[in-house]
Amino acid sequence: MNIGILTSGGDCPGLNAVIRGAVRKGIRQYGYSFSAIRDGWRGLLEDDIHPLHMVDVRGIGARGGTILGTSRTHPYSGGGPEKMREVMAARGIDAVIAIGGEGTLAGASRLADDEGLPVVGVPKTIDNDLDNTDYTFGFDTAQEIATEAIDRLRTTAESHHRCMVLEVMGRNVGWIALQSGMAGGAHAILIPEFPVGYEQICDWVRSAWDRGRAPLVVVAEGFVPEGLDDQVSDAGLDKHGRVRLGGIGNHLAPIIEERTGLETRAVTLGHLQRGGSPTAYDRVLATRLGMAAVDLCHDADWGQMASLTGTDIIRVPMAEAVDRLKFVPQHRWDEVQVLLG
Amino acid sequence: MNIGILTSGGDCPGLNAVIRGAVRKGIRQYGYSFSAIRDGWRGLLEDDIHPLHMVDVRGIGARGGTILGTSRTHPYSGGGPEKMREVMAARGIDAVIAIGGEGTLAGASRLADDEGLPVVGVPKTIDNDLDNTDYTFGFDTAQEIATEAIDRLRTTAESHHRCMVLEVMGRNVGWIALQSGMAGGAHAILIPEFPVGYEQICDWVRSAWDRGRAPLVVVAEGFVPEGLDDQVSDAGLDKHGRVRLGGIGNHLAPIIEERTGLETRAVTLGHLQRGGSPTAYDRVLATRLGMAAVDLCHDADWGQMASLTGTDIIRVPMAEAVDRLKFVPQHRWDEVQVLLG
Amino acid sequence: MNIGILTSGGDCPGLNAVIRGAVRKGIRQYGYSFSAIRDGWRGLLEDDIHPLHMVDVRGIGARGGTILGTSRTHPYSGGGPEKMREVMAARGIDAVIAIGGEGTLAGASRLADDEGLPVVGVPKTIDNDLDNTDYTFGFDTAQEIATEAIDRLRTTAESHHRCMVLEVMGRNVGWIALQSGMAGGAHAILIPEFPVGYEQICDWVRSAWDRGRAPLVVVAEGFVPEGLDDQVSDAGLDKHGRVRLGGIGNHLAPIIEERTGLETRAVTLGHLQRGGSPTAYDRVLATRLGMAAVDLCHDADWGQMASLTGTDIIRVPMAEAVDRLKFVPQHRWDEVQVLLG
Amino acid sequence: MNIGILTSGGDCPGLNAVIRGAVRKGIRQYGYSFSAIRDGWRGLLEDDIHPLHMVDVRGIGARGGTILGTSRTHPYSGGGPEKMREVMAARGIDAVIAIGGEGTLAGASRLADDEGLPVVGVPKTIDNDLDNTDYTFGFDTAQEIATEAIDRLRTTAESHHRCMVLEVMGRNVGWIALQSGMAGGAHAILIPEFPVGYEQICDWVRSAWDRGRAPLVVVAEGFVPEGLDDQVSDAGLDKHGRVRLGGIGNHLAPIIEERTGLETRAVTLGHLQRGGSPTAYDRVLATRLGMAAVDLCHDADWGQMASLTGTDIIRVPMAEAVDRLKFVPQHRWDEVQVLLG
Repeated sequence: MNIGILTSGGDCPGLNAVIRGAVRKGIRQYGYSFSAIRDGWRGLLEDDIHPLHMVDVRGIGARGGTILGTSRTHPYSGGGPEKMREVMAARGIDAVIAIGGEGTLAGASRLADDEGLPVVGVPKTIDNDLDNTDYTFGFDTAQEIATEAIDRLRTTAESHHRCMVLEVMGRNVGWIALQSGMAGGAHAILIPEFPVGYEQICDWVRSAWDRGRAPLVVVAEGFVPEGLDDQVSDAGLDKHGRVRLGGIGNHLAPIIEERTGLETRAVTLGHLQRGGSPTAYDRVLATRLGMAAVDLCHDADWGQMASLTGTDIIRVPMAEAVDRLKFVPQHRWDEVQVLLG
Repeated sequence: MNIGILTSGGDCPGLNAVIRGAVRKGIRQYGYSFSAIRDGWRGLLEDDIHPLHMVDVRGIGARGGTILGTSRTHPYSGGGPEKMREVMAARGIDAVIAIGGEGTLAGASRLADDEGLPVVGVPKTIDNDLDNTDYTFGFDTAQEIATEAIDRLRTTAESHHRCMVLEVMGRNVGWIALQSGMAGGAHAILIPEFPVGYEQICDWVRSAWDRGRAPLVVVAEGFVPEGLDDQVSDAGLDKHGRVRLGGIGNHLAPIIEERTGLETRAVTLGHLQRGGSPTAYDRVLATRLGMAAVDLCHDADWGQMASLTGTDIIRVPMAEAVDRLKFVPQHRWDEVQVLLG
Repeated sequence: MNIGILTSGGDCPGLNAVIRGAVRKGIRQYGYSFSAIRDGWRGLLEDDIHPLHMVDVRGIGARGGTILGTSRTHPYSGGGPEKMREVMAARGIDAVIAIGGEGTLAGASRLADDEGLPVVGVPKTIDNDLDNTDYTFGFDTAQEIATEAIDRLRTTAESHHRCMVLEVMGRNVGWIALQSGMAGGAHAILIPEFPVGYEQICDWVRSAWDRGRAPLVVVAEGFVPEGLDDQVSDAGLDKHGRVRLGGIGNHLAPIIEERTGLETRAVTLGHLQRGGSPTAYDRVLATRLGMAAVDLCHDADWGQMASLTGTDIIRVPMAEAVDRLKFVPQHRWDEVQVLLG
Repeated sequence: MNIGILTSGGDCPGLNAVIRGAVRKGIRQYGYSFSAIRDGWRGLLEDDIHPLHMVDVRGIGARGGTILGTSRTHPYSGGGPEKMREVMAARGIDAVIAIGGEGTLAGASRLADDEGLPVVGVPKTIDNDLDNTDYTFGFDTAQEIATEAIDRLRTTAESHHRCMVLEVMGRNVGWIALQSGMAGGAHAILIPEFPVGYEQICDWVRSAWDRGRAPLVVVAEGFVPEGLDDQVSDAGLDKHGRVRLGGIGNHLAPIIEERTGLETRAVTLGHLQRGGSPTAYDRVLATRLGMAAVDLCHDADWGQMASLTGTDIIRVPMAEAVDRLKFVPQHRWDEVQVLLG
């Protein structure tokens, strides 16, 4: 069997570990060969495909990014499933492992379930917003980087008697903000799932200040404060009502400063959260998922993806995983309340 | 309610986060007060106990070690349960949260179940060898440090065309070696649960070398090679048959060098694995366990400990958790085979 | 002798190590006592001063920020030198060690030289822009953090076939950009001392791209591109002609994208560069400077500051150090040219 | 001109940055070509030489180790200078850049000065023991790693009320121990240049303990305590009188424990100090030295090496640099005394 591998969507620490795990398992256990599909679905649609040998994956587990390149090309663009079928036939590719986030897996699911293409998936998201898996690789690295940032901002905040606002990733879900906020000892954690108003934010800030702390606020990029309409014009919002111009962190800092009288500064972590060497946790998870994806191919279990539940790697239908996002649940929000303010 | 907290046994990144989580939750949600019991059971037996206010736990979540101090004092020494009962009564302590490993929890379990003392537990072990919890805090930090060490040793090994042996913690179980070995791309992983002989080890080393790699060996301190008897005198072993003099890493290096002809060096990580700031993962887990332990006290659920299953914090009887060690299971050992050699 | 210590201006990794070095040296070698002056000159003007014992500086060398707090209060505000003289007399303070940047040292120099106050200095600047000292503590930590950021952005840039722009500190000088750019392998380094135009920037970007690299651009916050006037309205500039709205990194990214056709993203490091634990280099330098400042007091060498030349700590008049900024010299700019593009 | 590059002796973070700096400078500024000489002098003696293109040095600046490999082959072995001359002629190599420590540079110096071979040098040593250069690359990374280790051991020591002993590199000089000890806040610093006896060591330990600290001892591997003869048999020493069996750290720990009554544990950092990604400081220094070495070749300044003085890269005769080791001077030892105990 020849297995093509592609990575699609935003890059994520651990992608290379998935690739390495899959290639080593396939070659050593089953005697398979592998093909590198360049830049996600684009490579499959445009036949940008090359042999992928064991020597190509050596030592890559510790490296960020993806040796395969990535893109946001849609699988139903440029020829779509029919073109893929042709390319796979011409190249002798018997199966495809698609590593990607919600969009990628939704596409892979359709290709497998509706078009009958031999495709399996590996879930990938920094944001940890994929359902049907406890965690996705990349998330642990992101929460680690965000936590280190909070640790650094704390000493500046304390020395200057300032409030610091850190904006982290999370368009639709607040996992990075929630966990790094818990880990770093933030006094306010603002996530899309549980909107609060400006007064609540300022209450948390004031409460920390009154206890002698320099207030730290962690906000997910997708957080929308209640009462936002009164603060910014429509022009400052994107189509989902999220704050756009300069980001939510930069939006909040001057408002907090004005309302609390505390000097307030914002930092936006941005791309720093998704680059660099993955944590040990992410490398192990990614390696195991890559190996499990090869087992899916071996069993011709198309339309399935490898997934983490507890400490086990299991199989779940991709269609289920992309059905809904994994939001921060109410009990995790309740749990963190005693740490705020 | 006044809750006493103690940390017992080896120190572990995350202990302070447990303490902070418990104190904030208890004070803010339930209005409890707290007492700091110094140096594990010793403080309870010798009445070395002090008030523990919210100000005492500020900013400690990011710090390694334990602000309470620790010791290996046995709870049934020096007066035992009766003395504890007296001290608790005199101090007005209504409940005790004992944070510790297998030995500590076994003791806490007896105190609760047999003596009727109001004791609950929080599992703690670098080695991840406690059953009935998916992971214990401290383990993630340890695997991260071990993985970084492998990353560092790799470049030295490659530059010098050498084999490097890294000895990591794990007296009875191989979790740190297994996971850091997967994460770091080790060519041989040696763990207590699955003894292999010298020839197998050298085969893995030679195989990596023949593929052009500088071989990396990760060995848990408790690993005992098959055929050890022929290599060292009885004097070189401890009472469990483990290699003692200089450690297993230093034992293996010259043997690998002699049998493979490859220059081989050993490094023992030792205490570096248990100190320093915890990872974000460990801080979050520890904080949640600390908060859950206060709920156990609130519910008078004595003899129980807070535990991680999947992404949930649940309750399990301490007696069950210490019944057996959590060994690396056969399927995890099988899984890693394709990565070796 | 009782010595007052103050930290003034922006916080900087190593401030606490200076304080610790001074206190230990003064107490142990000379039997002096110390006073903590809170929040820079403000504490001296408002008599916010407390005893500073050896126990207060325990373990602080590894911590970022300053235990004394800081502010931007001007020494000639609120009573000025006369008020300081009164406060010092009332408190029995015989000497003041002022730790700060150009502004602080200029003030300290006037206080010593013009007012006859017993003040000595320790130079501090993240930006490394102080003359008459080879390096200032804090700079090494900042260049390390900036370099780690470049390392992280590289994998994202390569995976996405993107250009990444990193904005680092440096209002007037380009040391952080120059050194982190060299260390991280940036393809364009943009610093205030050597303005270049948009076409030169895009040439470097294209050249890297044509060699198969994902272009990395490091830009100091104070860099002003030649031909800026044609790009932005006056409203987008601050009073020194520097790009204000959103920063120079965010200014450049869309222009590079438009001119080169390469997807381009910007990240602004901001406050992350000045927080957190100092590097070993900075801790050693800071400790030695703190100890040398006490020798200055012992010798009543007012108006002098401790300074690094080669590996030696020497004395230089503060008036000389603040006379001009230490710019990146022509030969360092020439030297780096072969690394660009 | 074609320039051969070789790395010789122990590996060191920054070697790859030297290579990259040299190759980029030579190709871009002078239009030179380069040859990779494998494994130090061995490659030159055995004609193991390959073309070294700009693409080969891409992104290597951040990587530890050396892409050229290294060995301890002596330049006067196996054919010696005559063989080298032949190989260089046959390969068309016009100059050799030798990157190495004292031994390598001594050899390179003889080859240039006595044999008339076109050889220049770049100094390299983790230990910082080379004279005529302020610092050598690799040292900063080593002191950083050692300092991080002290930070980690501190929390363990404090939690367990223990004394911890950290053994770091430094066979003949104590630079790593001195600087990491200052940076990490060690209570005893033991270096070869200034031997002290067991009682002095224990006095420092007791003094720290009496002040409520958990004592931290940093010892250079080459430290020999006064009165050693009474403690160990001759068999435990190497030919220079240094403690051999198990290292000086393991030698000291039980003696400290016995004499002070404090539980004491030792950790040996070993190879962890020389692997992994170099610090920004080392990358910049190494890059600049590599570029300067090409200028030496361009000027046919054989027998010279590139060297750091203050912030400048200058030229010094290799013969001078290897004439004597750079020991920790008396004034640095005096300076650190107030920090001990």
